[in-house]
Amino acid sequence: MARSIITLTTDFGLSDHFVAVMKGVILGIHPAAHIVDITHDVGAFEIAEAAFVVAEASRWFPRGTVHVVVVDPGVGTARRPILAQAEGQIYLAPDNGVLSMVYARGPHKVRTLTAEKLFLDPVSATFHGRDIFAPVAARLAQGLAPARCGKLVKDYLRQEFHRPVRTSRRAWTGAVLKIDRFGNLITNFHIQEFPALASRPFRLAIGALQITELAATFAQGPPGEPVLLVGSSGYLEVAVNQASAANLLGVASGAPAELTLW
Amino acid sequence: MARSIITLTTDFGLSDHFVAVMKGVILGIHPAAHIVDITHDVGAFEIAEAAFVVAEASRWFPRGTVHVVVVDPGVGTARRPILAQAEGQIYLAPDNGVLSMVYARGPHKVRTLTAEKLFLDPVSATFHGRDIFAPVAARLAQGLAPARCGKLVKDYLRQEFHRPVRTSRRAWTGAVLKIDRFGNLITNFHIQEFPALASRPFRLAIGALQITELAATFAQGPPGEPVLLVGSSGYLEVAVNQASAANLLGVASGAPAELTLW
Amino acid sequence: MARSIITLTTDFGLSDHFVAVMKGVILGIHPAAHIVDITHDVGAFEIAEAAFVVAEASRWFPRGTVHVVVVDPGVGTARRPILAQAEGQIYLAPDNGVLSMVYARGPHKVRTLTAEKLFLDPVSATFHGRDIFAPVAARLAQGLAPARCGKLVKDYLRQEFHRPVRTSRRAWTGAVLKIDRFGNLITNFHIQEFPALASRPFRLAIGALQITELAATFAQGPPGEPVLLVGSSGYLEVAVNQASAANLLGVASGAPAELTLW
Repeated sequence: MARSIITLTTDFGLSDHFVAVMKGVILGIHPAAHIVDITHDVGAFEIAEAAFVVAEASRWFPRGTVHVVVVDPGVGTARRPILAQAEGQIYLAPDNGVLSMVYARGPHKVRTLTAEKLFLDPVSATFHGRDIFAPVAARLAQGLAPARCGKLVKDYLRQEFHRPVRTSRRAWTGAVLKIDRFGNLITNFHIQEFPALASRPFRLAIGALQITELAATFAQGPPGEPVLLVGSSGYLEVAVNQASAANLLGVASGAPAELTLW
Repeated sequence: MARSIITLTTDFGLSDHFVAVMKGVILGIHPAAHIVDITHDVGAFEIAEAAFVVAEASRWFPRGTVHVVVVDPGVGTARRPILAQAEGQIYLAPDNGVLSMVYARGPHKVRTLTAEKLFLDPVSATFHGRDIFAPVAARLAQGLAPARCGKLVKDYLRQEFHRPVRTSRRAWTGAVLKIDRFGNLITNFHIQEFPALASRPFRLAIGALQITELAATFAQGPPGEPVLLVGSSGYLEVAVNQASAANLLGVASGAPAELTLW
Repeated sequence: MARSIITLTTDFGLSDHFVAVMKGVILGIHPAAHIVDITHDVGAFEIAEAAFVVAEASRWFPRGTVHVVVVDPGVGTARRPILAQAEGQIYLAPDNGVLSMVYARGPHKVRTLTAEKLFLDPVSATFHGRDIFAPVAARLAQGLAPARCGKLVKDYLRQEFHRPVRTSRRAWTGAVLKIDRFGNLITNFHIQEFPALASRPFRLAIGALQITELAATFAQGPPGEPVLLVGSSGYLEVAVNQASAANLLGVASGAPAELTLW
């Protein structure tokens, strides 16, 4: 392949110079790199949201893509940088759980990023995206073997925010993972883990809302009425035809979602 | 040409994974595709605004560019996907009128996108951008002939929001097409359709504002005073030197604009 | 090199067609150009902010990169377009001081952009980004010599907003250059110009805040307490662990910062 793809996911926003600096460092090392922004609008310091976005977006990229994730409230403290391999993709991120939803999908390997000769010199305390992740991503996209970046580790951080907890024989407590741009509430109930929803009676409660039916499309409900559907990622989501479910229901990211299945 | 250009216009915003997923699908099929974002900040479900932005931006791209437009309040219902060819450019969009301002510029051909073998399998009810438009765009950018995508149709949807309506011998009712980032009011009066504005007395009324003169530049008016000028797209627009006309005048997109020409 | 890099910095935002139009013009002339957005969210008409972002981002790009800056409250009046060369980079911008922080870093040459045959024809009064800067950037990225664009000049505009003013033997008045996305206050005190801060007692006052210590990382302070540190660009900045210093302290961009050094 003539060039390799690097994606970027950060909480830097696009009004500062930070994202462009990372791109400059990458292109200085690997001028033919093809850089794709996933998002830079992760809520500042929202690890769960970043974990969801990275897991959902990265799986659609060609094998061998290098995904850089820089969302780290603990920068400057002890979050070590890591390299993960999963589903033919390569991830660079701080070891703060932001790759948990990638890990959850299947076999994966994790290394600590310790090969300091790959980093910019000196490494600042405040901008690992520029000093560590960007140069290592550029080298990986040029073909550097992941094994050259550091040793395999087992004690990386995994968080379980993506998975509902069973609270009784018929009941689970999940959460709203993310409010998307349209105000849809994306829950962490995945249709593959709850296939019975398609055929058995159920009740999903989020805030004051109770829903007992699965709809096929956004447009199925009358305007203004919430419908439950399987979103494009396979997660159950609550949507309102041409309106924001989040505003209508007063629900925020992280809100609990209670499922009962008979 | 070594690679082909694909532009994206959506109402997905940039904080979710949706846009990146479309890019991943495109690059998985056509790794050398050159993807350019037009905008992802179309007001959710604003077809007129998207129609304007796409028509104004796309005309500056090289011939053969593939423009993907995903702005569709009706996704999941009966909006069929279409392929249009106009001015040497290729457009993919839902058949909801979002290409009306492209059609208005001259000869064009429209096809229904029916070649399901080009789509992802299965096609979801909620994300045609990923499942239909992205893979077809990638194949077109690789050189696939538009005729392979589906049959020519005549019954595609055209809307006339871009064109003022004549209400008497000397009067037209138009509208504010869009408020731009600077707060300028872009109307749907195009100087090519109203060349007399440059030489004859006129009055343009928007809300409480009445303007009777055409200025040459933004900076011509004293600070705080609205001026009327021919914008960079050829449409008449109301601007205020170093301030937002929309805020100052309390005018929103869609507001009527009344022209009288003597 | 197979292709050349062009960066774009504007105050156009990303919801209008303006940025995409510039990209279309560039790609129409030079289809292999590699365009990188620095930011399009410069506060409308904020020259100091743009000057900082461009100077900080551009230095990380490979030599020979063409940086286009379109932030100009005076468009349509007498701001002439210029081309600057500094540190192996090429800049295109209006002559309004937006390159002052690039000039401040060392030797540089400035030319007026007068080679009208390189421009689009006609040149509009309102969109120099499309009509002048985009086509010239494309030609430079193809290898055109800067000397072909216009003559060297000495009377270009330099502003000194990046540099604190000495007000007594021990005191300097500086300013908050920019509030970044995290709410950090980036001042114009650079550690290379004030190395004594690392070893001598000092007091930095911004609004009601007084700080007398330099921290090593964001996370050093207790949550909610402002810390002073050397930011990733070398400028002193005030940050609050996991919160916005700007909100907490009620400080805006441009606010004075008073340094006393004993």
